[in-house]
Amino acid sequence: MKLTCSQSLLNAKLSLLSRIVPNNPSHPVLANVLLTAEPDRLGLSVFDLSIGMQVWIPAVVDEPGSLTLPARLFSEIVSKLPNKDVAITTDDVAVSLACGSGKYQMQGISADEFPELPDLAKIEPIQIDAGILSEGIQSTLFAASSDESKQILTGLHFSSSTGSIEMSSTDGHRLAIFQSADTEDCDFPLDATIPVRALRELEKMLTRSSATVSVRSDRSQVVFDMASEHGTERLTCRLLDGQYPAYNQLVPKDFNRTIAIDRQELMSSVERIAVLAARKNNIIRLRFDADAQCLFLSAEAPEFGSGQESIAANITGESIEIACNTKYLTEALKAAQSNECLIQVNGETMPFVLSPVSGKKATYLIMPIQIR
Amino acid sequence: MKLTCSQSLLNAKLSLLSRIVPNNPSHPVLANVLLTAEPDRLGLSVFDLSIGMQVWIPAVVDEPGSLTLPARLFSEIVSKLPNKDVAITTDDVAVSLACGSGKYQMQGISADEFPELPDLAKIEPIQIDAGILSEGIQSTLFAASSDESKQILTGLHFSSSTGSIEMSSTDGHRLAIFQSADTEDCDFPLDATIPVRALRELEKMLTRSSATVSVRSDRSQVVFDMASEHGTERLTCRLLDGQYPAYNQLVPKDFNRTIAIDRQELMSSVERIAVLAARKNNIIRLRFDADAQCLFLSAEAPEFGSGQESIAANITGESIEIACNTKYLTEALKAAQSNECLIQVNGETMPFVLSPVSGKKATYLIMPIQIR
Repeated sequence: MKLTCSQSLLNAKLSLLSRIVPNNPSHPVLANVLLTAEPDRLGLSVFDLSIGMQVWIPAVVDEPGSLTLPARLFSEIVSKLPNKDVAITTDDVAVSLACGSGKYQMQGISADEFPELPDLAKIEPIQIDAGILSEGIQSTLFAASSDESKQILTGLHFSSSTGSIEMSSTDGHRLAIFQSADTEDCDFPLDATIPVRALRELEKMLTRSSATVSVRSDRSQVVFDMASEHGTERLTCRLLDGQYPAYNQLVPKDFNRTIAIDRQELMSSVERIAVLAARKNNIIRLRFDADAQCLFLSAEAPEFGSGQESIAANITGESIEIACNTKYLTEALKAAQSNECLIQVNGETMPFVLSPVSGKKATYLIMPIQIR
Repeated sequence: MKLTCSQSLLNAKLSLLSRIVPNNPSHPVLANVLLTAEPDRLGLSVFDLSIGMQVWIPAVVDEPGSLTLPARLFSEIVSKLPNKDVAITTDDVAVSLACGSGKYQMQGISADEFPELPDLAKIEPIQIDAGILSEGIQSTLFAASSDESKQILTGLHFSSSTGSIEMSSTDGHRLAIFQSADTEDCDFPLDATIPVRALRELEKMLTRSSATVSVRSDRSQVVFDMASEHGTERLTCRLLDGQYPAYNQLVPKDFNRTIAIDRQELMSSVERIAVLAARKNNIIRLRFDADAQCLFLSAEAPEFGSGQESIAANITGESIEIACNTKYLTEALKAAQSNECLIQVNGETMPFVLSPVSGKKATYLIMPIQIR
């Protein structure tokens, strides 16, 4: 293998890939990045047996070939090189790197040992708008569980219904649902739970990629292909096993109280009250006062102090006081994004729903905490 | 106590003070900030019995008084308040905070329990230029020891000699000396070792303060007073006990080799080689080749790889190869700051010296590592 490529491009892609590389791989070669030199381009792949990433960059290739290199060492050296051409030459598994006044030698592992990434080439791809994917991930990712014992809940569920894509997440205490606007090109069956960790990487790739993402999926894998400024990029991921909860039946159809309120104002107030709530149990009380058309927020932490806030709100239905976790409320408010948001309530112990008034279609359901 | 002050000013000062507040104080009141309301101003003080900080901000004071409040809780709440006036009212040790639509209550501890900060009011202050203090700290702080068992070496030594201030630090393997340009107003005796932790805070205060710092010191304490945009600020600190090493006699008077080299180029090369050196023992080899008028840098990490760099240099004296710790070299190069730097060498096992060619007067001495 013998090639020359740009330091800045190589560096950018290696930092992206390095995030996937496991710290304690089950096999040494999984700590490596696979270099594949083809005419006019260099491929870089990493794979932790669950998530895989493959990117291509332009290169002047004198001798095609492939080899794997220690990903972190390679990435760290390249990141410090001057912004010039990098020449890469291999001799069996020995690699020489030359750039400016520096020469570096490393030992690689044969490309034969590197496991093959799934490509699902035989499956017909579906095209999804990158903006919709990105918005859906940002709108729901935070509500997934981080508890590894609840495997299926550590992912985001993707489904398609009536011509739109639905993405949802829940940790058992709250639920986030995002629905894309109806698009004709969503007329395909989709039912997959994708690990949060893979979607965090996908989100980073989406910010720099083309308008459309090509998605292939079978019962166990999903492959995202997108075009970036300098070549193609691919993320592959093993799906989470199991039946995702039938979350839609958890969302009440009717509510007997509706509150319209300024989202930013509510979020700031909740964040202040949360400082005190954090000293005790993270519980915030919300008293919707229909007579005063006002929301009163409060928290108490006996040995530390207490706090109260009030915000004008448009309240229909009877006055009510509910309590919930400050984190669930803050994160839902942050994700909702519209200027105004709607809170729909049935009773002190029944799930309530927060949603943006305009913009995207998202539903944030939160289980309240029973207070004496 | 009853007063009103600006949220943004209060917030800025509380974040500064919070850094001093101990996490596990020996006495509960040391986790608190002392509020002192005097006509037209509010004083805020924290003290961990070694380092103390006191700042003043303008305030509309209706009832003077003083009380201590939990520093972190107070600071965290204030940081989230809107940028409006904050009203503070006390009733015995209970405090009410009102700002915008929010009201907060906290329990304080009587001001009587708060230990008094040293002020050394009877000692004649000396005036030091804030720029010189700041430059001296930045030029030497990194070389102090972080090993608490070498108490005296965890500080920066201040001394005055022939009309200039000298600041120095050493961890036993390297030495940094900064000398201010001769100034007439440095004609005073100075001999104090100040803990690095206090100087880090002082450095932050200096960036926002007046041109001159008033310094008072006795055998056990030092007090820095400076004027900021909105009031005065004070840092007090207990000096480190013990005799500081007679470091000046460690610096050779004569060298038989002198190397002039581009500082930025050398620093970049060392940082690249350091990536490989870090895999083994952090040792970098420097071969000064007088015939080639070139410095060759290299490192080897047997199971990982090796690297070589070369840089043109102006070398007088015979060729020589020395080795040293990459970190000592990198940090000295970073602190030197001039475009070109000078390296002075005697032999493979003798200390060598790095210094900036222009700008400030600084000396960085490094003990080489003996190689086979």
